[in-house]
Amino acid sequence: MFKLNKRIITILLSVMVLSTFLFMAFSASGSSQTATSYSYNGTAPKYVFMFIGDGMSFAQINSAEAYLGKAYYEDKKVDVRRLNFSNFPVAGACTTFDATSFCPDSASTATSLSTGYKTHSGTINMDVTKQVKYKTITEMVKEKGYKVGVISSVSIDHATPAAYYAHQPSRSNYYDIALEMANSNFDFFGGGGLLQPKGKAGDQADVLELATKNGFKVVTNKDEILGLNNTSGRVIAMNSVLDSSKALPYEIDREKSDLSLADFTRKGIEVLNNPKGFFLMVEGGKIDWACHANDAGTTIHETLAFEKAVNEAIEFYNQHQSETLIIVTGDHETGGLSIGFAGTGYSTYFDKISHQNKSYAEFDSVIKEYVSKTSKDNAKLEDLLPDIKAAFGLITSKDKDAEIMSDMVLTEYETQRLRAALAQSIVPKSDRKYTDEEKVLYGGYEPLSVTLTHILNNKAGIAWTSYSHTGVPLPVFAKGKGESLFVGYYDNTDVFKKLSSILKLN
Amino acid sequence: MFKLNKRIITILLSVMVLSTFLFMAFSASGSSQTATSYSYNGTAPKYVFMFIGDGMSFAQINSAEAYLGKAYYEDKKVDVRRLNFSNFPVAGACTTFDATSFCPDSASTATSLSTGYKTHSGTINMDVTKQVKYKTITEMVKEKGYKVGVISSVSIDHATPAAYYAHQPSRSNYYDIALEMANSNFDFFGGGGLLQPKGKAGDQADVLELATKNGFKVVTNKDEILGLNNTSGRVIAMNSVLDSSKALPYEIDREKSDLSLADFTRKGIEVLNNPKGFFLMVEGGKIDWACHANDAGTTIHETLAFEKAVNEAIEFYNQHQSETLIIVTGDHETGGLSIGFAGTGYSTYFDKISHQNKSYAEFDSVIKEYVSKTSKDNAKLEDLLPDIKAAFGLITSKDKDAEIMSDMVLTEYETQRLRAALAQSIVPKSDRKYTDEEKVLYGGYEPLSVTLTHILNNKAGIAWTSYSHTGVPLPVFAKGKGESLFVGYYDNTDVFKKLSSILKLN
Repeated sequence: MFKLNKRIITILLSVMVLSTFLFMAFSASGSSQTATSYSYNGTAPKYVFMFIGDGMSFAQINSAEAYLGKAYYEDKKVDVRRLNFSNFPVAGACTTFDATSFCPDSASTATSLSTGYKTHSGTINMDVTKQVKYKTITEMVKEKGYKVGVISSVSIDHATPAAYYAHQPSRSNYYDIALEMANSNFDFFGGGGLLQPKGKAGDQADVLELATKNGFKVVTNKDEILGLNNTSGRVIAMNSVLDSSKALPYEIDREKSDLSLADFTRKGIEVLNNPKGFFLMVEGGKIDWACHANDAGTTIHETLAFEKAVNEAIEFYNQHQSETLIIVTGDHETGGLSIGFAGTGYSTYFDKISHQNKSYAEFDSVIKEYVSKTSKDNAKLEDLLPDIKAAFGLITSKDKDAEIMSDMVLTEYETQRLRAALAQSIVPKSDRKYTDEEKVLYGGYEPLSVTLTHILNNKAGIAWTSYSHTGVPLPVFAKGKGESLFVGYYDNTDVFKKLSSILKLN
Repeated sequence: MFKLNKRIITILLSVMVLSTFLFMAFSASGSSQTATSYSYNGTAPKYVFMFIGDGMSFAQINSAEAYLGKAYYEDKKVDVRRLNFSNFPVAGACTTFDATSFCPDSASTATSLSTGYKTHSGTINMDVTKQVKYKTITEMVKEKGYKVGVISSVSIDHATPAAYYAHQPSRSNYYDIALEMANSNFDFFGGGGLLQPKGKAGDQADVLELATKNGFKVVTNKDEILGLNNTSGRVIAMNSVLDSSKALPYEIDREKSDLSLADFTRKGIEVLNNPKGFFLMVEGGKIDWACHANDAGTTIHETLAFEKAVNEAIEFYNQHQSETLIIVTGDHETGGLSIGFAGTGYSTYFDKISHQNKSYAEFDSVIKEYVSKTSKDNAKLEDLLPDIKAAFGLITSKDKDAEIMSDMVLTEYETQRLRAALAQSIVPKSDRKYTDEEKVLYGGYEPLSVTLTHILNNKAGIAWTSYSHTGVPLPVFAKGKGESLFVGYYDNTDVFKKLSSILKLN
């Protein structure tokens, strides 16, 4: 044999250590991965994006994909255009039930994502006794020197964004939630506004003034928002165009010149970008609202706006591939959406959805206007047909375009349903007496609007089972450093535990 | 410095090659995995299981999990009991649209899983022109020396099992499909029977006699089936207890002494087990049928029977961990099932489902019997109340158990719906004139049965959108050798391509 000298032994050992390291590094992210693994041996990513499509599960994503796919095909062939995040290398799935409900709410589910604990629906980052506060992943990474941002298309004090900075026994404590924002040491809040900036009765200290005193720069003007960058300091950026719930307008209704969720995401990245890293949560909050209202067209456009926001993160990822992790998931499914309806069987007609030009909410305003100037006895569906055509593309057989738009013609049964709905919409909400059947037909929505979206959706081969959240599991898409931990079918609390492991937060 | 002699260089190079090999092996199954990767560098698994839960997606799995979970909790807390396969280390997801439909059928989707091609609904392993035959994964592995088995809880000539051995322009060519079975060189067919063993008119050569001539041992007796083992040769094993569609009885209706899908799976493994390996496809075919009928209780029990069949593969895996791959997926979702209903909002009551003791199909027989001895004018719901209580646990407020079973009491509206349904069920099918509303209420099902399952499901907080298949994406669970290729969200054709790569079939 031959003798090895010390240097050669050193080289050999180095190579063996290297191969062992490679083995460990790749086996940690490879086939030994179990559904509930939180074991991560890499270094922590510096830039972490947590995208939450509120109410978004597989059916919401796939119906947007089918809607886009169909637009590319004029013949009978079908195909989908995949959303950018559904093409992420890892797609796991998670359950969403909370401490006491299989149909949980955003407060409890976002608590699970943010802290790893299950709690009651309605509770934000506190235990079921409402005594113990749970530390959030954002608080943990802030302590490690990351900057933290929270963005939502709905009001920034709403349950999902609140779960990334507040701790409250009730999601309805809007003022207390906003106070926690103003008193936080976080770096960027953006998107929607505040529901109770001066308290429920409007008699308390202005939260935004407090925030300013605490060092936040508060901007509500489009040009100022677009001027933000990483020298702007700590920022609260609220869109100047907000609906009555202090949310951004629905994407389908948004003026092209107004800021979008993607704009806020891009500015959030620019404000937060720093060598020590950042954690940015971005919520597509109105996917959920559109699903509650069973409005597929609005849901699809919200999902596509959410995809555009994710695109900002992907562009950042492309510049910082070895240091970035992007997670895209939901908090719960809403509406029990499916691509398929009893009345259309095996057929779908996604192109019919493209006739829709207004959200159900904008059409509510049309109805409100009509009701304000029409007596109960004089109300008739015919008055609203031009508005219905403009908003949803639905027409009667007497319409001048009935021949060229024959697939959009209302059947006699559908017209009857609209008349019955108008008969309810024309009376004040407090005067509406619903039968059990009508309760299921209208939920808490404007009867005529929800009947219109139901009819349009059903004609397209899309249907809903609920006005509430459901227990249908969610996808968890992951791309970047640590992505492989998100392989498998696990619980929403595991999403926190996996992120916590990747970010070395234990 | 120092001089390296040849031997040391050889050792160094060997260690470097080893580390490179390790790098390649683990990067193939690791974080560089993309959603559409088919690249596999390991050796092919010797034992491959392909489990297909027909009509089964996340909602079917999770409702079974919630049903079992609820049973473990007497207090208000909720939890799920995970199914064995939903805990597999890898859970990907796939889209299911076929060449021309977002709501495809089992023929086209099983063709995609079995051959990697998209085709028309109704077509089995042929192209859209019905001219080109596609080679199946089972034919490919058979050529490599694997034994091949095909098991289904429905008739073995049904679309999904047929896609693993036949090539036909129409799934309705039952006799031609069965001929392909009889003429195949495969090794095990088991479960359900044949719809047209002597052709459509019953005037052609008996397929089972042909199969016997071709070397198959045909067994239809329970004891003979239980006596099968790996010395039995090539086997066709059909259950002696079959329904009118030549399928195994629904699990909820099955006599405990009768053979189950798990029994057939265990015997299939025993017959196929050999040192050169095997490929076994097992279909839970009646999950789909129960979903078509919108019967959640029957769906859940079918899913649990499917889980038991998967358990046989897991036990085999435990003995051959380094050589086995188990895939569990569906072919398409059926029914648009969701855990959530407009009438129950955020509440679910899965325990109500446990009152169900009969499938909708068995209750159809109860109705048939009643209709046969009752005139249209004499029919009244009251006559059927004892049967309804026994089958579904639903009672009226006048029932003696109305107080202790108060949550199962029918509302006035529900009772009205049952009376209206009975008024349709009492007349011959050909005499039933449905309004558009009734078409959606009853589909093609026995009006009284489907109204009963709708009411029971809705009371439990479960709802459906369709009597057909939907476009909702499916999970793909994988465990064992090559599992990591199934990470991501991809297309059903990719399932074939990934398996093909793992099995070195190119």
